[in-house]
Amino acid sequence: MEPLHIALIGCGTVGSGVAKLLLEHPDRLAARAGRALTLKRIVVKHLDKPRPVTLPPGLLTTDLRQVLDDPRIDVAVEVVGGVDWARQAMLDLLASGKDVVTANKALLAMHGSEVFDAGRRHGQTIAFEASVGGGIPIIGALSHGLAANQILSLQGILNGTCNFILTGMSETGSSYADALALAQKLGYAEADPTLDVDGTDSAHKLAILAQIAFGVNVPLDAILCRGVSDIQQDDIRYAKELGYTIKLLAEAWLDVPPSKKGGQLALHVSPVMLRHLAPLAQVRDAYNAIFVHGDAVGSTLYYGRGAGQMPTASAVVADLIDLATGRAQRTFQTLRLWSDNGRNITLRPTSTVPSRFYLRLMVGDRPGVLAEVAHILAENGISIASVIQHEAPEGAEEQAVPLIIMTHTAPTGSFTATLEHLDGLDSVMGPSVYYPVGD
Amino acid sequence: MEPLHIALIGCGTVGSGVAKLLLEHPDRLAARAGRALTLKRIVVKHLDKPRPVTLPPGLLTTDLRQVLDDPRIDVAVEVVGGVDWARQAMLDLLASGKDVVTANKALLAMHGSEVFDAGRRHGQTIAFEASVGGGIPIIGALSHGLAANQILSLQGILNGTCNFILTGMSETGSSYADALALAQKLGYAEADPTLDVDGTDSAHKLAILAQIAFGVNVPLDAILCRGVSDIQQDDIRYAKELGYTIKLLAEAWLDVPPSKKGGQLALHVSPVMLRHLAPLAQVRDAYNAIFVHGDAVGSTLYYGRGAGQMPTASAVVADLIDLATGRAQRTFQTLRLWSDNGRNITLRPTSTVPSRFYLRLMVGDRPGVLAEVAHILAENGISIASVIQHEAPEGAEEQAVPLIIMTHTAPTGSFTATLEHLDGLDSVMGPSVYYPVGD
Repeated sequence: MEPLHIALIGCGTVGSGVAKLLLEHPDRLAARAGRALTLKRIVVKHLDKPRPVTLPPGLLTTDLRQVLDDPRIDVAVEVVGGVDWARQAMLDLLASGKDVVTANKALLAMHGSEVFDAGRRHGQTIAFEASVGGGIPIIGALSHGLAANQILSLQGILNGTCNFILTGMSETGSSYADALALAQKLGYAEADPTLDVDGTDSAHKLAILAQIAFGVNVPLDAILCRGVSDIQQDDIRYAKELGYTIKLLAEAWLDVPPSKKGGQLALHVSPVMLRHLAPLAQVRDAYNAIFVHGDAVGSTLYYGRGAGQMPTASAVVADLIDLATGRAQRTFQTLRLWSDNGRNITLRPTSTVPSRFYLRLMVGDRPGVLAEVAHILAENGISIASVIQHEAPEGAEEQAVPLIIMTHTAPTGSFTATLEHLDGLDSVMGPSVYYPVGD
Repeated sequence: MEPLHIALIGCGTVGSGVAKLLLEHPDRLAARAGRALTLKRIVVKHLDKPRPVTLPPGLLTTDLRQVLDDPRIDVAVEVVGGVDWARQAMLDLLASGKDVVTANKALLAMHGSEVFDAGRRHGQTIAFEASVGGGIPIIGALSHGLAANQILSLQGILNGTCNFILTGMSETGSSYADALALAQKLGYAEADPTLDVDGTDSAHKLAILAQIAFGVNVPLDAILCRGVSDIQQDDIRYAKELGYTIKLLAEAWLDVPPSKKGGQLALHVSPVMLRHLAPLAQVRDAYNAIFVHGDAVGSTLYYGRGAGQMPTASAVVADLIDLATGRAQRTFQTLRLWSDNGRNITLRPTSTVPSRFYLRLMVGDRPGVLAEVAHILAENGISIASVIQHEAPEGAEEQAVPLIIMTHTAPTGSFTATLEHLDGLDSVMGPSVYYPVGD
């Protein structure tokens, strides 16, 4: 059988990892793919930049046209990152008859409809296992392994940088700034970590998972998104006292009506308080994990390295093998992702989603404050599950003391409206802090 | 596109679950498969046995020939269980031009070569996601998602019955007999639980995983197999004191030579002591989980319900969807499982595998015993990591006291040989108890 001829677009961290696997393990990959996987071209910005892989001569070029105009190339691996240039490159590659494997979650989350439509129009296939969860085969699990199920909920730790920071803050008691600095020093965070720590990266990945699991095109602004950059060490510590761990979760829940037709889908990215023994609370450092609940299979969990050179390359090369065998083409044709596949699922405003909440108010240390706060919560139908009032930290202004309240379940909208009311009280100092509490 | 026409062979717990999914969710399944999945026939032993699913009239038959001779039927789902009848049925189904989906791990572990050869000879496909891990898509993860990797180790909790029993013994302090009785009452254990509790079922599943992950035909008698039925509450308690949990694991490790060609594979099924915080130690009740370490992806973990009607049906129907799209056929052709695929991996005698060990000796409560035991261990190159000697339990014969020793790493063979020596000492009463200790 003819080899599968491959071009790499980009040869940074992930691209070098893909080249390494292809060049160092040809026999292994040919055995699993039923034919050789042959690297023919690598498109880069700078020909003579040092790279962490030894490349045979003649592969590198700075000109994408060398791939577009080469009819022998079957598939292009887009690992260049960024959105604008990558989007145009992907459209050009599909138009010139190449299948595309991509790890670019931002591109899919923002322009999934456009590139998937282009793929279908040109009869080409797009595969993207590496776009979510790094080496964890979560795309395959959702699109094949759990295909018999209606997925009812997804909960994921999808950003290794945030999880590394939160693990550091929880286990060593360090501040957000120190934990971030350590993550940068160890290569777990970029010099500009904004898209990771503000939750955007998790939201991109959640939009991709929601597309496969629920068949829904989720505009990014429909995902309520909070990151980790304003999490304070105090709240990590109070959470611990209460038996909870704070994790940044990307979550989606489907509310199925009694008719079982269609349903309403709510999504958010948020720090969430999880009980210490909850499976996702155990996920440490830069690892990712995704909890998937299906109506037939029940609860399942997938865990592994969510980023890094070789884990991501593992997922890219799995897609190349799937293309070489012809499986990926069939998946692409059948699932019709990012098309209007009319599954009759609509988006649900997050304000209507019921949740328990952790609430920390800094209150004046004087009589009647707790009564006042409790009264307002009660008036708004928010029931208190437990309360901790700590003594004032030494040197705190005006003897402000933390008042920690765990609520029973209430609609998110009622809770946040009540919060505005509480923040307006004279006895409440500084902005209050709240996080949803997981089951 | 033509529907995929399906026959069920067997309509017990799993078969009824498959029928339920096919009959209750035709639109969902057709959307994922690109064509309808149509149930045409159900072969059963007794036509009028009550079943937990409402079947349309005319589907049931007691005659397998009704399937073999019906050219419209594309695929047969073998969920009848047992080995002898099922083996012949599967060979007949393949010979009559049917693809086969099976959940029968015993059949594959014992007769994998024969039935896969028959499948290849007749140009038919065998799919078996449901045979290991119930609803967890572990077969797909190994054969597709991690296909770029050389798998270096597998560690699985593959038997829900054993894990339910061990969870009960650990969390409620119950005896093995009481924990088993509860498992039977709740439907987690069969009336005759032998094949579950003696480790045979886990060994069957390990042989299947080893076939996919390492391309090795593992004869069942090459898997050293210990079950849970002789685990004593005392050892669960001592393990806990030392910070460990006992789990029944099915494990395989590949030892890769410096040339990176081939390697030696060791396998066993055994109760193993795991640190409380190890991911597999957290897996409770009837859940299964599989830890897979690949050379590119690093550590990954898959978790979910390993048995039960709907989780297993979820995996069976995933295979039907894969057959309907044509993916399963390509996987079957490419991977050539249970053929002599010459990956140059040989089996390694378990005796050469290094491990740490937990050892409990019941010793006479008199001077010099510890010195004698320590001397014999030292003579045999077994180094002691920690020791606990408890006082004699009240009413114990001859004042026998438990002496608990955790060793450093030693070859399994040296350790078990030393054990025989220790058991022969006058001061050691009753047979000693030992378990490997996980990393």
